[in-house]
Amino acid sequence: MIKNEIKIFSPATVANVSCGFDVLGFCLETIGDEMVVRKTDKKGIFITKIEGFDLPFEAEKNVAGVSALAMIADAKPDFGFEIEIYKRIKPGSGIGSSSASASGCVFAINELLGRPYNKTQVTDFAMKGEALASGSEHADNLAPGVFGGFTLVKSTVPLEVLQLPTPKDLYATIIHPQIEIKTADARAILPKTFPLQDAITQWANVGSFVHALHTNDYELLKRALQDVIVEPHRSQLIPFFKEVKSAALNNGALGAGISGAGPSIYALSKGIENAKNVEKAMRAVYSETNIAFETHVSKINTEGIREI
Amino acid sequence: MIKNEIKIFSPATVANVSCGFDVLGFCLETIGDEMVVRKTDKKGIFITKIEGFDLPFEAEKNVAGVSALAMIADAKPDFGFEIEIYKRIKPGSGIGSSSASASGCVFAINELLGRPYNKTQVTDFAMKGEALASGSEHADNLAPGVFGGFTLVKSTVPLEVLQLPTPKDLYATIIHPQIEIKTADARAILPKTFPLQDAITQWANVGSFVHALHTNDYELLKRALQDVIVEPHRSQLIPFFKEVKSAALNNGALGAGISGAGPSIYALSKGIENAKNVEKAMRAVYSETNIAFETHVSKINTEGIREI
Repeated sequence: MIKNEIKIFSPATVANVSCGFDVLGFCLETIGDEMVVRKTDKKGIFITKIEGFDLPFEAEKNVAGVSALAMIADAKPDFGFEIEIYKRIKPGSGIGSSSASASGCVFAINELLGRPYNKTQVTDFAMKGEALASGSEHADNLAPGVFGGFTLVKSTVPLEVLQLPTPKDLYATIIHPQIEIKTADARAILPKTFPLQDAITQWANVGSFVHALHTNDYELLKRALQDVIVEPHRSQLIPFFKEVKSAALNNGALGAGISGAGPSIYALSKGIENAKNVEKAMRAVYSETNIAFETHVSKINTEGIREI
Repeated sequence: MIKNEIKIFSPATVANVSCGFDVLGFCLETIGDEMVVRKTDKKGIFITKIEGFDLPFEAEKNVAGVSALAMIADAKPDFGFEIEIYKRIKPGSGIGSSSASASGCVFAINELLGRPYNKTQVTDFAMKGEALASGSEHADNLAPGVFGGFTLVKSTVPLEVLQLPTPKDLYATIIHPQIEIKTADARAILPKTFPLQDAITQWANVGSFVHALHTNDYELLKRALQDVIVEPHRSQLIPFFKEVKSAALNNGALGAGISGAGPSIYALSKGIENAKNVEKAMRAVYSETNIAFETHVSKINTEGIREI
C-alpha cells in the first residue's frame, strides 16, 4: 500500500574524493537532513516548513522544490505534495547540503508515487535542483545519497551512475571550518588546462581506487587517495589545510582531502578507532586558531537516503 | 630442481587501452616471441642467435640483453647466460615487440636462478631494456606480459602493477598496417596540456573500465572504451583509422582504439565469433588500400609469459 506521508533521512555526502574529482563520492551516516513529505489534494509543490537554516519557501527558488517540480512535471500525479524540511547540513559546508535537499525530496515523492522511477532517474530529477544551487548539473553529491556507499558518476549526459563496493571497516572523519568559500573563487582558482602527465597520474589513481574498493585493499586505497590536479590549487582557499591533512595522515588516516569544493576536509580510515583519533588530531589543529569548526565521524552509509 | 635451460613464449601485448593511456594494458595469446635461455660457465650475457628480424647481438644494444644485464647485476650469479631470440613480433608494430624481448628474457633468467624475484621485480628489470627502445622507462606493455590478463600500472617510480580480472569471453582483434610511425611524431602530435573536462571524462572511463572488469559487465566495458585525450590526435598518423574503428564497432566490437603508439589497431569483443567478424570487417577496409597488413584474433592471455 502506498502511503500518504513519509519521513526520510537524507544524508550528507562527500564528493570530489581526492583522485576522483567530479566523479567519485561517498555517503555519510551521522549527519543529514530530515524531511516530511505528504500528499495534498491540491496539485503542486508546497514547502510548508523549513527549520534549521533560512532558505526560500517558494518551490521555484528552493533546490528541493525545483527537483520536486521536475519529477511531478514528468509523473503528472492528480495530487500535490507538501514538504517540511528539517535542515541539519549547513549550506556551503562542502558536504552536499543542497544535494541532500534535492535528492531527499524526490526520493520521498518517488516513494509516495509507488516508486515509478529507478535510482538513476531519481538522481536525474535531483540534478535539476542541484543546478539551481551550483549553476550547472552535477551528480557527484547526489549519487552517493541516492545509491548509498561509494559511487562513480560515469557521465551526466546521459546520467550513468556506478555503485561501487564499500569495504566494511571504512570510516570517514569530517572537519568543517566555519568559513565561506565562494563557488566563483573555487572555480577561478583552477587552471583551465593540465599537463598530460598529471592527468595520467590521476586516472591511474582512479583506476587503482576502484580496484581497491573491489578487493578490500586498504593499503592500495591509501596509495590511490592522491589528488595532483585540484587539491594543490583549491587547498589554498582553506586555512590550515596542509596541517589538518598531515595531522590526519600522521594519526592513522588512509587519506584526506577537500570535501566537495570545501571548506570541509574529509579523511578516510580503517576502523572507528582510527577515525576518532583522526578527529582528535584534526580538532587539535583548528583549536589553535580563531576559526570555529565542527567535526563528524561516520561509517560509510551503504543505504543512502532512507525512510525513518 | 632448477634447470640449466628454458624455452619460453613471450606474448605480444596491447598498451594504452583507449581511456587508459600509459596505464592499462592486456596480453595476447596467438602472437609472441620465443626465446631459449641457457646457463653458461662464463659469466655475462651472450646473445647467440636472433631469428626473424635484424637486431643487435651486443647485449648492451639489445633490449633483451640490457634487461638481462640489469638482472644479473643485481643477482650476481657465478655463471652467465646465452640467449636465443626467435622474434615473431615485428619491431615498431605497436603490440609490444621490444617489451616481449625485454620481459621474456628476464622472466627466463629468473626461472633459471630459482625465481628469486617477484613479478613486479621482473617487470622492473625489463623496464631497463624497454628504456633502450623507447627512451624512457615504461611498464604498460611489460606488465601485461609478466602478469598476464589486464594490468594497470599505478606508478612506475616506484613500480606498482595491479593485476585486474579478465572477463572470460573477451577476445582481441588486431590489425597491423605495415607502415612506420616514428616515436618522435607520435609524441610531437600530442598537446602538452589538456582541458580539465576531457581529463575528467577520461578518469571516469578508467574507473568505469576497472569496475566493468570486476563485474563482468560487457556493456559497461563498451561505454568505457573511449579515449578523448590521445586518440583524436594520434589517430591522424594511422591511415583509415576512423574507417577501421567504425567497421569494428559496426561488426560487434565492444571498443577499438590505437594499440600502443600504433600503427596497430586493436578491438575487443565478447566471444570469438564477434572477434572474427571484426577481423573480417577490419581486413575489408585495408583490402581496398595499397597498404599491406596482417591481423590476429586472440583470447586475452591470462597467463602471460610461459615456459614452452
